[in-house]
Amino acid sequence: MSPSLHTTRRIEFADTDMAGIVHFANFFRFMEAAEQEFLRARGLSVAMRWEGEAIGFPRVAASCDYVRPVRFEDVLDVTVKVHNVGRKSVTYAFEFLKEGALVARGQVSSVCCRVNDGREIESITIPDGIRAKLEPASGF
Amino acid sequence: MSPSLHTTRRIEFADTDMAGIVHFANFFRFMEAAEQEFLRARGLSVAMRWEGEAIGFPRVAASCDYVRPVRFEDVLDVTVKVHNVGRKSVTYAFEFLKEGALVARGQVSSVCCRVNDGREIESITIPDGIRAKLEPASGF
Amino acid sequence: MSPSLHTTRRIEFADTDMAGIVHFANFFRFMEAAEQEFLRARGLSVAMRWEGEAIGFPRVAASCDYVRPVRFEDVLDVTVKVHNVGRKSVTYAFEFLKEGALVARGQVSSVCCRVNDGREIESITIPDGIRAKLEPASGF
Amino acid sequence: MSPSLHTTRRIEFADTDMAGIVHFANFFRFMEAAEQEFLRARGLSVAMRWEGEAIGFPRVAASCDYVRPVRFEDVLDVTVKVHNVGRKSVTYAFEFLKEGALVARGQVSSVCCRVNDGREIESITIPDGIRAKLEPASGF
Repeated sequence: MSPSLHTTRRIEFADTDMAGIVHFANFFRFMEAAEQEFLRARGLSVAMRWEGEAIGFPRVAASCDYVRPVRFEDVLDVTVKVHNVGRKSVTYAFEFLKEGALVARGQVSSVCCRVNDGREIESITIPDGIRAKLEPASGF
Repeated sequence: MSPSLHTTRRIEFADTDMAGIVHFANFFRFMEAAEQEFLRARGLSVAMRWEGEAIGFPRVAASCDYVRPVRFEDVLDVTVKVHNVGRKSVTYAFEFLKEGALVARGQVSSVCCRVNDGREIESITIPDGIRAKLEPASGF
Repeated sequence: MSPSLHTTRRIEFADTDMAGIVHFANFFRFMEAAEQEFLRARGLSVAMRWEGEAIGFPRVAASCDYVRPVRFEDVLDVTVKVHNVGRKSVTYAFEFLKEGALVARGQVSSVCCRVNDGREIESITIPDGIRAKLEPASGF
Repeated sequence: MSPSLHTTRRIEFADTDMAGIVHFANFFRFMEAAEQEFLRARGLSVAMRWEGEAIGFPRVAASCDYVRPVRFEDVLDVTVKVHNVGRKSVTYAFEFLKEGALVARGQVSSVCCRVNDGREIESITIPDGIRAKLEPASGF
């Protein structure tokens, strides 16, 4: 399977602000949705059961650069790639294009966590089975 | 204690949409925040421990009428009142004013629920101790 | 063309709250997106140019009844229908189903407005050409 | 006037997600609100009239590092500082503390823009009068 995923997203009215463009914070929602679509295609999720445990991927870092304004009803082409897989964390890189032109790019780093009863969160080494699904095959 | 609570809320940039006014869905966030402030003043919460159990108040109905547009940096006067307390549910009524003029009014009905392990939700009769805090003293 | 539209919507992580379910205010975003999809299919929009003027449809009323909790990754079937077309306003009715079971239903009423320079908003009689697209053909 | 501003923010129910913590994208809303409070204290705004023109500050970059989870009803101490003022842009740095412990830090870079009729956006050199209010007095 390809180490990246392409999807599209149409801008909704509620995504805009009084400047007439997409509010900048919403790009982080868009990144998360694309990340989840990437994970879903690999049988994973940002919130899942794995070998009897509740696993989540809370974010430890997120950033976005805004290149061009995006407006209501624009349809964005979104690409999500695994940028790096560390021992406990994974970093995704995102690109947003409108009619072929880059409008924004971003990164999100998530840490693999076990969610204990009582919803305490503890970071863990990414289980091998998950890691195998996140990393591109060797040779890429 | 008064059966109503008054608070204020300043409109943030992210609350607006491309029409230059507050996006209509945000008034429901504003109502919830006022409801919580009302509950907090009574030692309650929309999500709390009560006599050893996790109690929540998921919504079963919400409505809002929009009278005048509200804009960035407007400071709203918000009044929340208990409209009705049923066996399992409570209905709040809200009014939003700007410089003395009504801009919106709404209602939210919440059902008292026990949140079981596994986060299953089960509606329950409102415990007497909670009911006593929600209902105005007789004579009102 | 049918006087209703059916679409689907997958619940995103950001749509949820700490109760583990979709935050109730988000259903109003979902309704708006379905309304816009309905309008788009008719060559209309909640924010458009029409006969040389900027036309918008700010909301004057919105309501929702919540029947069952909805969770992350649920795919909802959404139906939007024109409930009523008045002289200046249109009311839409929405139903949300999950695996065939009703989870929520709502209504939104929007007023047809001319947006003047300076972004002042003035309600107007719905232009005939728009009305024709909103109303079901006689005989329905 | 101090080149920084301190404010507080109480976490609302709608700020949380199903992981039981504040959804990461909301920190960008929190930063924007703090930035606006900083500007307001100086007679400025992210959307204002200045010498007869409409001036705005759309974002060109935003980032956040998440150190500790933040939960419903937590009250955060927020500090916003001007990190750098360039010819056309200003970068703010933010810190979020809970009971004295750092929970998140972030940066937002905004470009000074003239908003023309038709809402076209054009970046401009920050007017001297605005620059004087953003920059700390020499000697700091």
